[in-house]
Amino acid sequence: MDLRVAEQRVRDARVGRLGTVTPAGRPHLVPCCFALLGDIAYTAVDAKPKSTLELRRLQNIRATPATCLLIDHYDENWSLLWWVRLDGTARIVRSASEAERAKNVLTTKYTQYDHLDIAGPVIALEITAWVAWP
Amino acid sequence: MDLRVAEQRVRDARVGRLGTVTPAGRPHLVPCCFALLGDIAYTAVDAKPKSTLELRRLQNIRATPATCLLIDHYDENWSLLWWVRLDGTARIVRSASEAERAKNVLTTKYTQYDHLDIAGPVIALEITAWVAWP
Repeated sequence: MDLRVAEQRVRDARVGRLGTVTPAGRPHLVPCCFALLGDIAYTAVDAKPKSTLELRRLQNIRATPATCLLIDHYDENWSLLWWVRLDGTARIVRSASEAERAKNVLTTKYTQYDHLDIAGPVIALEITAWVAWP
Repeated sequence: MDLRVAEQRVRDARVGRLGTVTPAGRPHLVPCCFALLGDIAYTAVDAKPKSTLELRRLQNIRATPATCLLIDHYDENWSLLWWVRLDGTARIVRSASEAERAKNVLTTKYTQYDHLDIAGPVIALEITAWVAWP
């Protein structure tokens, strides 16, 4: 897959799956909305009801920043399958101005945020590698 | 989510995302087709073109069997979102009879395998926990 195609597919994607590693060394996956800004993918914890387990991703990132975000397309015609994986290092955004920029790109991409607060912290995934198939 | 609903959603799902951990401790994600048989989710490496990287999942499982499979639904109406995560222990299937059973459930679920060999090894994820949201 051409890198330009990969980037467009990632920009157009409405959902990705965020992979982190638990303190016990297990993989942990959660679907998430995200938006790209330069070499950073931002995702936020919104005000939808969450169990405490759901915030496991934050604990994981604090312990092990290595994180990846998978964007893929499923089709019953398997010749149309593709995926793009963004590998990188994640951190919880502490800077108010960076959080503001992140919320701006997220609310621009997702009109759903018009009626839903981004109540929780923002995660910044600093992308170090793009891996695409096929 | 009721566990019976979760199980039906997992059975009906056409694609999941498999999460493993690399020997370096990074999360690794790949979309995959799968089929349930009792408490085991089977997924296979088929004959579609793969880079060597694509088989990373097998190396990962050998080093760290802790594996999870995420099944989720995205909808622009965020009140319809859900996910089910199957946590467990994965292994490469060595037994010819188990591989045969696994290929049977996979080919029954996916008619695509009528025209595509399951050339590579079969992965068995022995499920130890179901986690569902909401």
